[in-house]
Amino acid sequence: MKKDFNFKLIFRFFGILLLVEATALLLTSLVAFYYKEDPRWLLLSGSIALVTGMAAVVSGKNAPPLIGRREGSLIVTMVWVLFSVVGMLPYLFTGSIPAVEDAFFETISGFTTTGASILNNIEALPFSILFWRSLTHWMGGLGIIVMSLAMLPVFGSSGAQLFATESAGPTTDKIHPKVAETAKRLLLIYVTLTVAETVLLRAGGMGWFDAVCHSFGTVATGGFSTKQASVAYWDSAYIHYVIAVFMMLSGVNFSLYYFGFKTKFSKIIENEELKTYLSLLLLFSIVVAVSLIDFTSGFSWSALELAWRNAFFNVTSTITTTGFATVDYMSWSTFTWIILLFAMITGASAGSTSGAMKMVRVVLAAKYCYYEFQKLIHPNAVVPVKYNGKIVQADVITKVLAFVILYLFTIGVGILVLTLSGMPFMESIGGMITCLGGVGPGLGLVGPAGNFAAVPEFSKWFLSFVMLLGRLELFTVLVLFTPTFWKK
Amino acid sequence: MKKDFNFKLIFRFFGILLLVEATALLLTSLVAFYYKEDPRWLLLSGSIALVTGMAAVVSGKNAPPLIGRREGSLIVTMVWVLFSVVGMLPYLFTGSIPAVEDAFFETISGFTTTGASILNNIEALPFSILFWRSLTHWMGGLGIIVMSLAMLPVFGSSGAQLFATESAGPTTDKIHPKVAETAKRLLLIYVTLTVAETVLLRAGGMGWFDAVCHSFGTVATGGFSTKQASVAYWDSAYIHYVIAVFMMLSGVNFSLYYFGFKTKFSKIIENEELKTYLSLLLLFSIVVAVSLIDFTSGFSWSALELAWRNAFFNVTSTITTTGFATVDYMSWSTFTWIILLFAMITGASAGSTSGAMKMVRVVLAAKYCYYEFQKLIHPNAVVPVKYNGKIVQADVITKVLAFVILYLFTIGVGILVLTLSGMPFMESIGGMITCLGGVGPGLGLVGPAGNFAAVPEFSKWFLSFVMLLGRLELFTVLVLFTPTFWKK
Repeated sequence: MKKDFNFKLIFRFFGILLLVEATALLLTSLVAFYYKEDPRWLLLSGSIALVTGMAAVVSGKNAPPLIGRREGSLIVTMVWVLFSVVGMLPYLFTGSIPAVEDAFFETISGFTTTGASILNNIEALPFSILFWRSLTHWMGGLGIIVMSLAMLPVFGSSGAQLFATESAGPTTDKIHPKVAETAKRLLLIYVTLTVAETVLLRAGGMGWFDAVCHSFGTVATGGFSTKQASVAYWDSAYIHYVIAVFMMLSGVNFSLYYFGFKTKFSKIIENEELKTYLSLLLLFSIVVAVSLIDFTSGFSWSALELAWRNAFFNVTSTITTTGFATVDYMSWSTFTWIILLFAMITGASAGSTSGAMKMVRVVLAAKYCYYEFQKLIHPNAVVPVKYNGKIVQADVITKVLAFVILYLFTIGVGILVLTLSGMPFMESIGGMITCLGGVGPGLGLVGPAGNFAAVPEFSKWFLSFVMLLGRLELFTVLVLFTPTFWKK
Repeated sequence: MKKDFNFKLIFRFFGILLLVEATALLLTSLVAFYYKEDPRWLLLSGSIALVTGMAAVVSGKNAPPLIGRREGSLIVTMVWVLFSVVGMLPYLFTGSIPAVEDAFFETISGFTTTGASILNNIEALPFSILFWRSLTHWMGGLGIIVMSLAMLPVFGSSGAQLFATESAGPTTDKIHPKVAETAKRLLLIYVTLTVAETVLLRAGGMGWFDAVCHSFGTVATGGFSTKQASVAYWDSAYIHYVIAVFMMLSGVNFSLYYFGFKTKFSKIIENEELKTYLSLLLLFSIVVAVSLIDFTSGFSWSALELAWRNAFFNVTSTITTTGFATVDYMSWSTFTWIILLFAMITGASAGSTSGAMKMVRVVLAAKYCYYEFQKLIHPNAVVPVKYNGKIVQADVITKVLAFVILYLFTIGVGILVLTLSGMPFMESIGGMITCLGGVGPGLGLVGPAGNFAAVPEFSKWFLSFVMLLGRLELFTVLVLFTPTFWKK
C-alpha cells in the first residue's frame, strides 16, 4: 500500500522556501550596504539560495498534488536542516564563525528560536551578520506560526496533513476556516508585536539597530542579543520591562489576539492555558523575587524594584523559552535554578512561538492526575476532565500523557549522551533541558554568563539535533528513526 | 453519602500489627542476651508495643467489618508511620541514635526497605541494634509482599479494598484465588530466599550474624549493611556474586517463583516484565563494565573480572533498589551516574520487594509511545498495546502514564524542596531519586561513600516522608492531602 515518496513535490516545496531564504539574505545585504560593510558574501549566500531554489522549483514542476503522512514528517524536518545549512553560509564565508559545527549550531539555534550561542565576542561581529543572526530568529518564529499554514494552498487540501505534523499542541481550536486568510492574520499579529516593541525600545533610548534585533529575538522567543551581556547591557528599567512584557505577550497563543480583535473577550478570559501560563509566571516571579531580597540590609524601594525586575524578567525569559538575561541566575540560590528548569520544561502556550512542552499539556496532565485521585475516593461519581468548558476525549489525554513522558525521557537520554561526550553533570542537565525547550542559557558553564563555545564538537552536533527535535515536538522527527517509517 | 471513619476497625488492625512488632522486638532482645548485651531497652520497647497493641485490639473489639476506600489509604499510610515510631525506640533508648529525626529516618528507611542511613560508625553499634536495624528491612519487605494479603481475612471480603491501595503495579495476574493461601506461599518463597542466601554467605566465610543481616537486607531489597564500608568490607568475589545474584532474584515478581513450583515455566519465560528487567540489568552492567576497563594498561583477566563484578553488583543493587555497594560509583565516569539514576527511577518488578516505578510501568509506557509512532504513519492499521499476550485496556494505559508523570513530577518537586532546605544541587537530585525509589545511596555527599548524617534536619523529615511516599506508590499517601479526601 505504501508508495514512493513524492520527490517532485518535496523539491518544489523546498525550492519555494529557499527563495524565501534568498530574499532574506539579499535583504540582509542591504544592511551591509547601509553600514558600509562588505556585502559580497551575503550576496553570494543569497545567490546560492536563489539559484538552487529556482532549480528545485523547476525540477518540481507538474508534481502530483498528493502528499502522504511520511512526506509530511520528512519535509518538515528537512526544511529546518536545509534552512540552517544555507543560513550558516554568511557566518562561514565572512569568517565570523569559522568552524562548521559552530556555524550550524548558531544557525539552527536561530531558526528554532532557541538562542543558545557559541559566540564569545558578539560585539566584534559586523552589523549585517548580527542582523542576519537575529533575522533567523524572526523567520523561525514566523515559520512556526505561519509557514505551515501559508504553504497549504501549494499542496491543496492534502496539505492539511502537513499542518498536522507541525502544529503546536493538542488543541485544534480553529480560528478561521480559510487557512491562507488565517495565516495572513497571524502574520499581521506577529508583525504588529515586532513593530510595537521596536518603537517602544527606540523610545527608551535604544538604537534602531539594537531595537529591531531585540524585537526579532523577543517576538520569536529566541533570545539572541546584539551584546555579549545580553539585555543586562542596558542599565534601564524601562528597557527591561518593555522586553519582559513583550516576551510575556509572545508566550500567548496568537489566536487569542485574533479573538481580541473580534472582541470575543470571553474566549480570552476563560482560556485555561492562558490562566495557567500567567499564574505560573507570576508565582515563579514572586518566589524568585522574595529569594532575591536581602532582608538583613534594611528596606529600600529601589532594592525591592530591582529584585522584582530581575525575577520577573528572567522568569518570563525562561518560561517563554526566550533566553534573554539581565543577570546571571547561577548567582541566585540553588532552588531558583530548579524553578527555572521547571519553566524551561513547561514552556508557554501552544500556538505561540514558545518552545518546550507547552502549558496546555501541563494543564491536561495535571487535571488527569487530579481526576485519578478523585476516582480513588469516589470510583463511581467522577466528572471527566474538561478543558475550556469542553470534555476532553480519553484518547487525547492519553496522547498528551505519552508526549509528556516522551519529552521527559528524551531529556534523560539527552543528558546521558551529553555526559558520555564529556560534558559535566550540571552542564549536561542544563544544556539538554535548555536546548530541547528552545530556551538558550542552561546551567553552569552554559548558563547565562557562559555559552556553548567550549562544549565538545560532538555535543554541538547533538544539541543542534536536540533543538530541532524540541522545535518540532519530538514525534515529527523521531518517527524518521522508526523502522516502520522506512519500510516499503 | 460518606460515613465516619471506622475507627474501631482501624484500631484493631493497628493493634494486631503492633503485636507483630512487639514479637519482633522481643525476639531481638534474645540476640542481646546471646551477645551478652543489655537487653532491657529492647524488652522495654517490646513491652510498649505489646501493651499498646493489646489495648488497641481490645478497644477495636466488635468493630463492624466494613472498610471504605478512605480508611484503606489512611490505614496503610499510618501503619508505616506507627511501625517507625515504635521501631525507633531501641535506637533512642540505647542512645545508638540520640536525635529523634535521625532515629525516625533510620527506622522508616529500614521498614520501607530503602537503606539510606544517617550512621557514621555502624560497627560501633551493639549486635542487637544492628540485628534490629536489618530486621526492619526484612519485616518491611515481608509487609510489602505479604502483609496486605495475609491481613485480608481480618476484614473479610471488603479487605480487597485495602489490598488494592497497597498492591504493587497495575497487574492483577492472580496466582491463587484464596488470598490467605497465597500469602503463605509468598512467605515461603521469601523465607526460602533468605535462608538460602544466609547459608551460601556463611559457606563463603561470612559470620552467621553478618550473613543473616545481609540476607535480610538483600531479600527485602533494603541495603543496610553491618559494616560502614557496606559489602566492600568483604574482599571476596564469591560473597559479592552471591549477594548480587540474590539481589537480582529479589527483584523478580514473586508470583513467578510460584509458577516455577507449579512447573508453569512458559508463564515465566514469556513474562515481559521479567524479560525487560533482566535485559536492562544486563545492558546497564555491560555498558558500565566497559567504562570501568582501563584499556591503556594492557589486558588481564582479573581486571576484566573486577570491572564486570563491580558493574554487575552495583547496577543490580541500584535497579533492584537495594543499595549495597562494593565500590563508590561517584569515582566512575559521570555518564554511569545517569544510568544508575535511570535504574533508580525504574526499579525492578512489580510484586517484588523492589521500590520505584516498577518495570511493568516502563514496559507499558514504552509500548504506548511506540504505538503512537506507528499510528502517525498508519493511522488505520494499528495493533493495540499488548502485555504478556493480552490486549491492555486503554484506561489501564492512561493510569500507568499518569503514574509515571506523577512519579517524575514528585521527583521534581522533591528536588525543589531539598534545595530550598539548603542541600546542594547534586545531593538534592540524588537524595530525592534514591529515597523515592527506596534505593539508599544517592549522589555526591549522600553517595555510596557518604550518608545522610549531614543533611539538614528538615530534609531528614522530608526524606522520611518521601521514602514512605515511594514505598506506597504515591497515590495512597498523596490522596490524604486532597481536599476531597477530608470532605464529609
